[in-house]
Amino acid sequence: MVINGPSFFIGKNSPDVISFGSGQPDLPPPKEIELIIRDCSDYKYGLVQGEEWLRDALSNQYNNTKQYTNSTKDSFVITNGASEALDLTFRALSRKEKKRNVLLPKPYYYSYPFIINFSGLNPLFTELKNNRIDLIDLEKKIDDCCAILINSPSNPTGRIESIDTLKQIEELTQKKGINVISDEVYKDLIYERENYFIKGPKVITINSFSKTYSMCGDRIGYLWSNDEELIKNVIEMKTHTSMNTNIKAQKRAFLATKIPKEYIESQRQIWENRRNLIYNGLKDIGFELNNPEGAFYVLPKINNTNKIVHDLYNDYKIIVYRGEWFGANNHIRLSYALDECKINKGLDIINTYVKKNNLL
Amino acid sequence: MVINGPSFFIGKNSPDVISFGSGQPDLPPPKEIELIIRDCSDYKYGLVQGEEWLRDALSNQYNNTKQYTNSTKDSFVITNGASEALDLTFRALSRKEKKRNVLLPKPYYYSYPFIINFSGLNPLFTELKNNRIDLIDLEKKIDDCCAILINSPSNPTGRIESIDTLKQIEELTQKKGINVISDEVYKDLIYERENYFIKGPKVITINSFSKTYSMCGDRIGYLWSNDEELIKNVIEMKTHTSMNTNIKAQKRAFLATKIPKEYIESQRQIWENRRNLIYNGLKDIGFELNNPEGAFYVLPKINNTNKIVHDLYNDYKIIVYRGEWFGANNHIRLSYALDECKINKGLDIINTYVKKNNLL
Repeated sequence: MVINGPSFFIGKNSPDVISFGSGQPDLPPPKEIELIIRDCSDYKYGLVQGEEWLRDALSNQYNNTKQYTNSTKDSFVITNGASEALDLTFRALSRKEKKRNVLLPKPYYYSYPFIINFSGLNPLFTELKNNRIDLIDLEKKIDDCCAILINSPSNPTGRIESIDTLKQIEELTQKKGINVISDEVYKDLIYERENYFIKGPKVITINSFSKTYSMCGDRIGYLWSNDEELIKNVIEMKTHTSMNTNIKAQKRAFLATKIPKEYIESQRQIWENRRNLIYNGLKDIGFELNNPEGAFYVLPKINNTNKIVHDLYNDYKIIVYRGEWFGANNHIRLSYALDECKINKGLDIINTYVKKNNLL
Repeated sequence: MVINGPSFFIGKNSPDVISFGSGQPDLPPPKEIELIIRDCSDYKYGLVQGEEWLRDALSNQYNNTKQYTNSTKDSFVITNGASEALDLTFRALSRKEKKRNVLLPKPYYYSYPFIINFSGLNPLFTELKNNRIDLIDLEKKIDDCCAILINSPSNPTGRIESIDTLKQIEELTQKKGINVISDEVYKDLIYERENYFIKGPKVITINSFSKTYSMCGDRIGYLWSNDEELIKNVIEMKTHTSMNTNIKAQKRAFLATKIPKEYIESQRQIWENRRNLIYNGLKDIGFELNNPEGAFYVLPKINNTNKIVHDLYNDYKIIVYRGEWFGANNHIRLSYALDECKINKGLDIINTYVKKNNLL
């Protein structure tokens, strides 16, 4: 059996498996989002850009933060998850930009290089230094690029970048006229500070209802930008490649925007408790790792990741991912999107396995 | 005001407008598809290829026709409407094929050239002859192409190709190893015969629940192929570009597959009555046009289509589309996906307008 990437594990989440694999919340979505009334208009084609009530609600959310974003409903496109938002963005940029490289920090979310390649652009990497973006390396490479892709909080590292770094990236890219794609799908899962929302005339932020509201299967994401031409190009492309996003899912997303902030805070507290549990647990076993500041991933160091991923799955029914799939050699990635009971059980088994095999 | 394509009219369907524009059924979807039970698993990531129960149901449908298709659940990928099925197919072909042209009959569905271009391939056209595919021209051009795109029943012509023609295309493409993309989204709306299902080792059929079950807004389409490599490549691409298709919409599609055949027959009868009404009405006004054999479009001849489309919309609140948007110069396209009352009223106004302006 060859386990060659995260997709190997799709559909393998039977009850006797403990999965530190997939990055989806185990929590149920809020009850408030359920639709009760049959409404035939849900089955009509909708606006390709997304329904106005949902874009208005998002616009209010964006403008009601400390960092005023100057958003209107025209700043948003509702998409089939953040994945389609990323795909449409890079395809639109690819049709317009002369420079063909996209700069992104390494390690990276495993789909990024695929999405960039599929669009006809090339990924160019800047290695993290002490688990942070290395601004010197970034500045060296950015002139060859039409865009930079930032993901804070980050999958797979769980790090957030300092506000100072994000502001320097804003300034640098604005000076050079380079597009910034800021994937902020974990914006509501930060343990250190509020999200810093990257802004600027050529900034596109990518977002989703999947992580905040545990609605992964509904595939409701969106992009935000004040770059009118980019928005126009994205809508034109989506008109032909998928048309409107599912209307009923947009209604559920709209209902989610009405849920009081306390809900998000209570969810965040659950994630923080789990973060503490897994970070301390892995440290006690002897792993070297950074304490996650956001999202729900840890990336401990270890060699022989291929063997470990196979052994843990085949012999112990534990799913962990190779860091190599995310550009992080000699690391494994664990998602802690599962309950504390399972986290504890999983950690016990991992402890037994690494001790038995003298892996640390 | 410049009306530069079908997208101009999106969202302009107020109650006082009679729209012969958009190709979506005005009929409500069947009641049987409504979901009643809250099920948290609908919000989990699903299989990128589509849920197994839906693909099994489709496979049974495909195998239970007179033309046995040798299908299994592995022959299908569930997508965000037929649009995404087309987009993924052409993107997958574009990454593999050396020849860069795709042959398609002209007139064509207006999104085809966009989707082909976006994928990096080039559309190459074969003009219809007497409203039929010209096999001599097709055979002349096909050697330069990696694929041919067939759409029978056709948008915008409403024609169906003869089974003989479709069989010759099967044979020719199989001999030459050329991919066939057969867009059969109107397969259940044929007034002349049953659908002929194009088959072969390099055939990909595109389908949808939108037209048969009036579920456009739900965006549930699918592709079928026995080309395992193509299916694998499409799934790999979708893993990164949109992940699973909305789960609840897949459940509704599954319920739709359980609705007895009589439902489809009764719908077809409604469409046929409307077809007769609009065909005879336009003929009585003095238009030259072909009698549609399937789908719900007519394509009457007339000059000055730009002026007509603007006048009818601005002065009479009637939406019709320019044939030019579909590669049909000096024609207008009317969708008859609206009730007989509105069809009659619309025809009366069109009659007054063309008489007043001596346009025929």
